[in-house]
Amino acid sequence: MLTEFTLIERYFAHATPAAGHVRLGVGDDCALIAPPAGSLLAVSTDMLVEGRHFFADMAPRALGHKTLAVNLSDLAAMGARPLGFTLALALPEADPDWLAPFSEGLAALANRYACPLIGGDTTRGPRNLCVTVFGEVPDQQALRRDAAVAGDDIWVSGALGDARLALGALRDEWALSDEALADSRRALEWPEPRIQLGMALRGIAHAALDISDGLLGDLRHILERSHVAACVNVDAVPHSPWLAAQSEAVRRTCALAGGDDYELCFTAPAAARAALDEIAQSLALPLTRIGAIVPLERPGSALTLHDNAGQPVSLAFQSFDHFR
Amino acid sequence: MLTEFTLIERYFAHATPAAGHVRLGVGDDCALIAPPAGSLLAVSTDMLVEGRHFFADMAPRALGHKTLAVNLSDLAAMGARPLGFTLALALPEADPDWLAPFSEGLAALANRYACPLIGGDTTRGPRNLCVTVFGEVPDQQALRRDAAVAGDDIWVSGALGDARLALGALRDEWALSDEALADSRRALEWPEPRIQLGMALRGIAHAALDISDGLLGDLRHILERSHVAACVNVDAVPHSPWLAAQSEAVRRTCALAGGDDYELCFTAPAAARAALDEIAQSLALPLTRIGAIVPLERPGSALTLHDNAGQPVSLAFQSFDHFR
Repeated sequence: MLTEFTLIERYFAHATPAAGHVRLGVGDDCALIAPPAGSLLAVSTDMLVEGRHFFADMAPRALGHKTLAVNLSDLAAMGARPLGFTLALALPEADPDWLAPFSEGLAALANRYACPLIGGDTTRGPRNLCVTVFGEVPDQQALRRDAAVAGDDIWVSGALGDARLALGALRDEWALSDEALADSRRALEWPEPRIQLGMALRGIAHAALDISDGLLGDLRHILERSHVAACVNVDAVPHSPWLAAQSEAVRRTCALAGGDDYELCFTAPAAARAALDEIAQSLALPLTRIGAIVPLERPGSALTLHDNAGQPVSLAFQSFDHFR
Repeated sequence: MLTEFTLIERYFAHATPAAGHVRLGVGDDCALIAPPAGSLLAVSTDMLVEGRHFFADMAPRALGHKTLAVNLSDLAAMGARPLGFTLALALPEADPDWLAPFSEGLAALANRYACPLIGGDTTRGPRNLCVTVFGEVPDQQALRRDAAVAGDDIWVSGALGDARLALGALRDEWALSDEALADSRRALEWPEPRIQLGMALRGIAHAALDISDGLLGDLRHILERSHVAACVNVDAVPHSPWLAAQSEAVRRTCALAGGDDYELCFTAPAAARAALDEIAQSLALPLTRIGAIVPLERPGSALTLHDNAGQPVSLAFQSFDHFR
């Protein structure tokens, strides 16, 4: 019979073998990590709730992937290399048909980044998945939100808005062709944490974060913490052909305020453009300049938008907030 | 209006000022910790679900305390000093009348152990509280479960069973006087993590763990991981006067298999008895010898129980399991 004590061991601990810096993994009161010398330990936690962050019928393999991916994305945004993670999960029942593919999706991503499970907790309850990730970043090289300066370019990786495009179709807000839905659904369910990009940006980018609640809302966090303003060309924001085929309103809603993108938004001095083009080439990941950091002139002027023609665009978007 | 983004800041981040080793706290993609040189980082995670780990009407101040206490207890069991913690919480609503006392109970304990909140996540959902704690322990001095050796004494701190005594009364399994209920309920709702004891046991105790699922079930984890057996005098297990007044059956159920005790169970060589008596004195915390570690003779013989008269006691207890 499947018990609490065997569940973590059977489905998770063996699937992600302990790597170099993990001295003691699952099975004791605590895990023990030997932190790499000269490094800071980066820590982030994210909780995913059924019906809120994912649909109840989401394929468990994709859910396992996404549960870890959204946490690794926070390490990427800090420029950190993954070391390990803990998983606490509440489940309505210990169902092997759900646990096996969930753990496989999780483990495949964990092993790809040499990021083993080091501790866990399981309990019965409404489905809830809480991951805490640990990474390491050399002292002084972490990509913080408070490091943007006037004159910086603003960049984003990949393409934005496809996850929101899929969500809208699944919610019947708009219709998509089967092919468009399949492609955009991949962005929603199988986001790729930009770990290599984050590490490559050490010493090059100033400020960075990952886009989880929508580009414009997340960019505001950089502006607030860095005490600067920004000017963004909304038509420069990279998006897929599927999004290009939508109306301007849908396209902008998805790309600018969609959320669940897990691409990086970062700022860097103009002198870094050549280096960034090389990084984009070597990672085969598009990096696109979408605007500039400017001095903060007065409160409320922090973010101004314009289009390709230079015309102002009004801000009618809101970032996602669970309690709004 | 209370939003997701202000909730952690307002109720939690300010209440627990960052301490020495925390380089960057709440508000970025990750927190940054500068690990103390020569130390291992100890990590543990626990998830508490409403209706399962606590009653829906539990006073929020006590719940805030207990949520962190059960996690600090895991650090104590490892001999680790607290460094910080993350909190992810799902709440049905952002209710200031619940959040304020919950955060006060949490912060009072956090500040007592200089253990600041370093990161968090909030979402709407069935009430669920997930804490991950970080501590440091000098290399080679962690109190692991696999370090018990034949000849060791088995010790427990404090008194066991009062939390289960209160739970039984609240569930109408038995009746208690108002005074007995008030006292035992304190054990259930305001457990004290044995941080000082854990740190004092470095270099003295062999194996250790904290008792969360019942003494005998938890002790088995030490036996399994250390490949040893144990002989325990059930009448030596320390308990309160309230438990002493109960029938033998209730007393043994509560003290031996009750759970939610958060006292430490540890093994130490006989040569350490004088040192342990001194520790008990200096911490004003009783430490009681309840048995001995013996060689494992055959599978299934791992744990034998007897009473004060030396008569065998049969094992009809089961440790708590969320999926059994």
